[in-house]
Amino acid sequence: MSATVGVIMGSDSDLKVMQQAADMLEQFGVEYEMTVVSAHRTPQRMYDYAQSAAERGLQVIVAGAGGAAHLPGMVASMTRLPVVGVPVNVTPLNGVDALYSIAQMPAGIPVATVGVDNARNAGLLAARIVALGDPAVAERLEAYRDALVEKAMKGAARVEAAKK
Amino acid sequence: MSATVGVIMGSDSDLKVMQQAADMLEQFGVEYEMTVVSAHRTPQRMYDYAQSAAERGLQVIVAGAGGAAHLPGMVASMTRLPVVGVPVNVTPLNGVDALYSIAQMPAGIPVATVGVDNARNAGLLAARIVALGDPAVAERLEAYRDALVEKAMKGAARVEAAKK
Amino acid sequence: MSATVGVIMGSDSDLKVMQQAADMLEQFGVEYEMTVVSAHRTPQRMYDYAQSAAERGLQVIVAGAGGAAHLPGMVASMTRLPVVGVPVNVTPLNGVDALYSIAQMPAGIPVATVGVDNARNAGLLAARIVALGDPAVAERLEAYRDALVEKAMKGAARVEAAKK
Amino acid sequence: MSATVGVIMGSDSDLKVMQQAADMLEQFGVEYEMTVVSAHRTPQRMYDYAQSAAERGLQVIVAGAGGAAHLPGMVASMTRLPVVGVPVNVTPLNGVDALYSIAQMPAGIPVATVGVDNARNAGLLAARIVALGDPAVAERLEAYRDALVEKAMKGAARVEAAKK
Amino acid sequence: MSATVGVIMGSDSDLKVMQQAADMLEQFGVEYEMTVVSAHRTPQRMYDYAQSAAERGLQVIVAGAGGAAHLPGMVASMTRLPVVGVPVNVTPLNGVDALYSIAQMPAGIPVATVGVDNARNAGLLAARIVALGDPAVAERLEAYRDALVEKAMKGAARVEAAKK
Amino acid sequence: MSATVGVIMGSDSDLKVMQQAADMLEQFGVEYEMTVVSAHRTPQRMYDYAQSAAERGLQVIVAGAGGAAHLPGMVASMTRLPVVGVPVNVTPLNGVDALYSIAQMPAGIPVATVGVDNARNAGLLAARIVALGDPAVAERLEAYRDALVEKAMKGAARVEAAKK
Amino acid sequence: MSATVGVIMGSDSDLKVMQQAADMLEQFGVEYEMTVVSAHRTPQRMYDYAQSAAERGLQVIVAGAGGAAHLPGMVASMTRLPVVGVPVNVTPLNGVDALYSIAQMPAGIPVATVGVDNARNAGLLAARIVALGDPAVAERLEAYRDALVEKAMKGAARVEAAKK
Amino acid sequence: MSATVGVIMGSDSDLKVMQQAADMLEQFGVEYEMTVVSAHRTPQRMYDYAQSAAERGLQVIVAGAGGAAHLPGMVASMTRLPVVGVPVNVTPLNGVDALYSIAQMPAGIPVATVGVDNARNAGLLAARIVALGDPAVAERLEAYRDALVEKAMKGAARVEAAKK
Repeated sequence: MSATVGVIMGSDSDLKVMQQAADMLEQFGVEYEMTVVSAHRTPQRMYDYAQSAAERGLQVIVAGAGGAAHLPGMVASMTRLPVVGVPVNVTPLNGVDALYSIAQMPAGIPVATVGVDNARNAGLLAARIVALGDPAVAERLEAYRDALVEKAMKGAARVEAAKK
Repeated sequence: MSATVGVIMGSDSDLKVMQQAADMLEQFGVEYEMTVVSAHRTPQRMYDYAQSAAERGLQVIVAGAGGAAHLPGMVASMTRLPVVGVPVNVTPLNGVDALYSIAQMPAGIPVATVGVDNARNAGLLAARIVALGDPAVAERLEAYRDALVEKAMKGAARVEAAKK
Repeated sequence: MSATVGVIMGSDSDLKVMQQAADMLEQFGVEYEMTVVSAHRTPQRMYDYAQSAAERGLQVIVAGAGGAAHLPGMVASMTRLPVVGVPVNVTPLNGVDALYSIAQMPAGIPVATVGVDNARNAGLLAARIVALGDPAVAERLEAYRDALVEKAMKGAARVEAAKK
Repeated sequence: MSATVGVIMGSDSDLKVMQQAADMLEQFGVEYEMTVVSAHRTPQRMYDYAQSAAERGLQVIVAGAGGAAHLPGMVASMTRLPVVGVPVNVTPLNGVDALYSIAQMPAGIPVATVGVDNARNAGLLAARIVALGDPAVAERLEAYRDALVEKAMKGAARVEAAKK
Repeated sequence: MSATVGVIMGSDSDLKVMQQAADMLEQFGVEYEMTVVSAHRTPQRMYDYAQSAAERGLQVIVAGAGGAAHLPGMVASMTRLPVVGVPVNVTPLNGVDALYSIAQMPAGIPVATVGVDNARNAGLLAARIVALGDPAVAERLEAYRDALVEKAMKGAARVEAAKK
Repeated sequence: MSATVGVIMGSDSDLKVMQQAADMLEQFGVEYEMTVVSAHRTPQRMYDYAQSAAERGLQVIVAGAGGAAHLPGMVASMTRLPVVGVPVNVTPLNGVDALYSIAQMPAGIPVATVGVDNARNAGLLAARIVALGDPAVAERLEAYRDALVEKAMKGAARVEAAKK
Repeated sequence: MSATVGVIMGSDSDLKVMQQAADMLEQFGVEYEMTVVSAHRTPQRMYDYAQSAAERGLQVIVAGAGGAAHLPGMVASMTRLPVVGVPVNVTPLNGVDALYSIAQMPAGIPVATVGVDNARNAGLLAARIVALGDPAVAERLEAYRDALVEKAMKGAARVEAAKK
Repeated sequence: MSATVGVIMGSDSDLKVMQQAADMLEQFGVEYEMTVVSAHRTPQRMYDYAQSAAERGLQVIVAGAGGAAHLPGMVASMTRLPVVGVPVNVTPLNGVDALYSIAQMPAGIPVATVGVDNARNAGLLAARIVALGDPAVAERLEAYRDALVEKAMKGAARVEAAKK
């Protein structure tokens, strides 16, 4: 079965963070593919990846990068698919550089930016988009929200117990 | 015909910025509705809006807010639809406060953040998502990219002419 | 005896920080309750908590959260009680994101913000408010200030001794 | 009738901002006094003001200052009353300097910080505290929240009308 | 005669800033060309521009862009020529976004970043590089430094006169 | 009579700000000289100025500069006199660049940094230093403090009158 | 022999940083005293310390504090002596809060701010001021500069050797 | 054979970072020299180094410094050679201080700034400049880009394998 979401990153050193996007997609039963596409080192590969994404059946591209993080924005300029950008914290500037480099795109080329290192939310956002055309994913998203509630309630119990 | 995208804002003073999201949707032939939903002043209305959004046929919610901009994140916690957040620059902090308040959501509740005051990109992002299920919108997005190229080429001509 | 101050937090992982607010209240003999109330995961619970707080006898709500910290502001919008917000440092942005998300509330919905991770001051602030109607707490606050002086004087002695 | 809230500021040039705190108190029927107390130019006056505040019947002190804004924190160290601090934007640093100087108090001396230039919220916060012992003020606060809802609904109507 | 320096910008709205780079090159007798090359709107044009730059005889590329300023870094990844990046101040973030997006490139792809809106220095830097192989330009650079001294001395005279 | 304080600035465009330092010295009866000394354009002049300062009878050097403000630190490295640095706000970064460039000197070479654009305080600081050896200046400083009190009290009266 | 420089800090936890100021004074043969004076916990003690400083023979006060660092500015407002402020890095904000709280003083009350945690430079600055009236200290400062050169030259040798 | 690139740093403690610039030059067969030149401790040595650089055959100077990093800008003001500046992260401010101190140079004196601690890119930038007149270096730069592609492709393979 072909992938619905493409998870890409600027360097394999981003894998530790980006794996969490993949884990979310896995959990929601969304088919995905995952690879390294470097805006700066393999621009032609990026071009090919982005250009062919829609016709290959991808619906969303999740792209993570750190520092002067150009990958999400460049990919967004080469496809009409929604692109989710993950600012990865890899420099002394705490990820603020990546956040600005991804979020502050010029009018005309949008990137759906999530929080610094928050690849989990990138996976979730992709799942929310996929769910628009896939009721099974939508259902799992509803179940996930129920699970969040349950987890919060368990945390509440633990905190309440901490008070003698 | 019912709306596919809901454009909401925390205050009617955000209209000047958020109108640009509406203009984009208009341009792409995406049906939308637009209103004020205040996280802090009308929490029940926000709850109702977010809870009913999916069943009312909305596919994407675009939410703009400034300062401690809670609207996009709160709405995202009450729906499984993708929510696009627009940080509006309304305080002395230049919109950095709104950018952080929208992008830095906890894992579990994603918001698709765009740049400060960049409601145009929010509209475009919504259109990209809608286009996944609507080939006519997809086509218009491709045409829009062609228009961007043309506009860039005109700019190039103007700049080249500026050099004697 | 029913609680006078409600100490809430967005996640049980905030307990380590928020425990210091509870410790202060304990020290000042202020009855309190403590639990998890998540703005994003349990919005209905938050609504119920905030709405009923005044009639349940609470006088102050101390709310801690990190990142896009919406809990204090949202609770403040649903009660007329004073709400004290604690920005918790949980993201790579060093708590600046939480500080902005809590302090930069729109006009109309105030949050009493304390320093990043400074739950101790949140507890103290709540005690100062409670003391307005409770002379015993007021007295303990005066004693606390005396103790601060004594501690400072001991520090002075230690530093003076450090100079040979 | 004697004042319940003291509104002070570091310089008469802060009046334009701080007047909004006074207006709020006026609107809620809270008796207040208003003057200039400079931490740096009149330290003795500050000491006297803070020391006598509780016995003079004040319940809350609202203090505004800009730049290295020491007034709120210094006053908070000399009284057991709750002190609300307003960072005023008067330097090229956009009020971030004042926000940090007021919010980042050491553990032991809390200041209830509001947003940059947001004296309105400072007035409201003081009213919320006063309301704990004054049902009439509490009632007016509830009415104020209703008015906020109404104003939001009017904004909603205006925005909805903006969409043809 | 063919150009030695290519001055490019992401949008014709950057011309007002980037013209100063051109003016410097003009002043130093360095042949240059100037046009718009948009990383996001005309990626193929950018690719062609960068790829052919060296063989077309360019020695330096000066690239200006604002916001999530990807142009300098992307061009730098597609040529072995030195690329000078100018962060242009076009968003509410005062150019810090562009500065980070240009300077914080990953190891492997360098961009020679100058100050925000400081296209004049970009032109000068290009001239310094060109001067390594062009003694006439080197000479003009020395003369320019002399002129800077003279201008500083005139400023000194003016300031000294300001003191009665 | 020869100057006791040297007021220098990186460019004559800094005069508007730096004039306030001169005004303060004038007011305190401290002899001063004022000129432009550019770290970058006239390094030899800077070297000569700093090296000869002590033997020429200067006691303090007040140096203002903007952006990458090197003048105060460089001068401080070439003299044993105390150097007061004034960060001047001349770039889009609001003077934060100059503040960091002046305050964050390496251990070994101190600069006495004042607030952004706050040349008045630089003049005052110089006067405080001069006063250590000049009782007349010390006396005028005491009088100045009295005047500050008076001015604050007038402000207090004005603010108190503003409350009907 | 009585002290010429007073080294004070807001808390004994600042000793580790402030000890370096003392070490510098020791090295330059400047008599100093060292103690804790807390702006917030012992305001009266601070008042007494600052008020009596000049007549007790102090020439300079070096004051260190972290977070909302009020000590240097408050002391500066209560004496006509030059006050050197050391921003101590004790909160998650990396000392930027202390830097702003110390440097951004209102016009009228100057503080000579040094870099974050750079108490060594504070000691040096005090020594430079003391040297104006004490030739022996001036001589030692000159010798110190020679030692800095020597140390730099040794570093140069080490680095040159690092290149095979 | 004489050096083509001079690698200098403000302190031998910068060697760990700056060694990476040297490694790059080594790898590209560019002759270089490396030493400590301190703007603040050895200004005369800096002056001599910069003034003689061109005639000694240097084509590029790579200068690294931290905090109020004046070395690159000062050297740039004393030579007509291109100067590459490396902001070194040595203070609590995460290198933002050094970045601003190096990049925000006044118009007239350019520094080619690279990312915080990114000495590798400084070496590469110097190599790119040297390559303009040295085809062998140009060739090695092309080979380096091929190696980057290969490394990226290996990373891609690793990441793809990580997905079961």
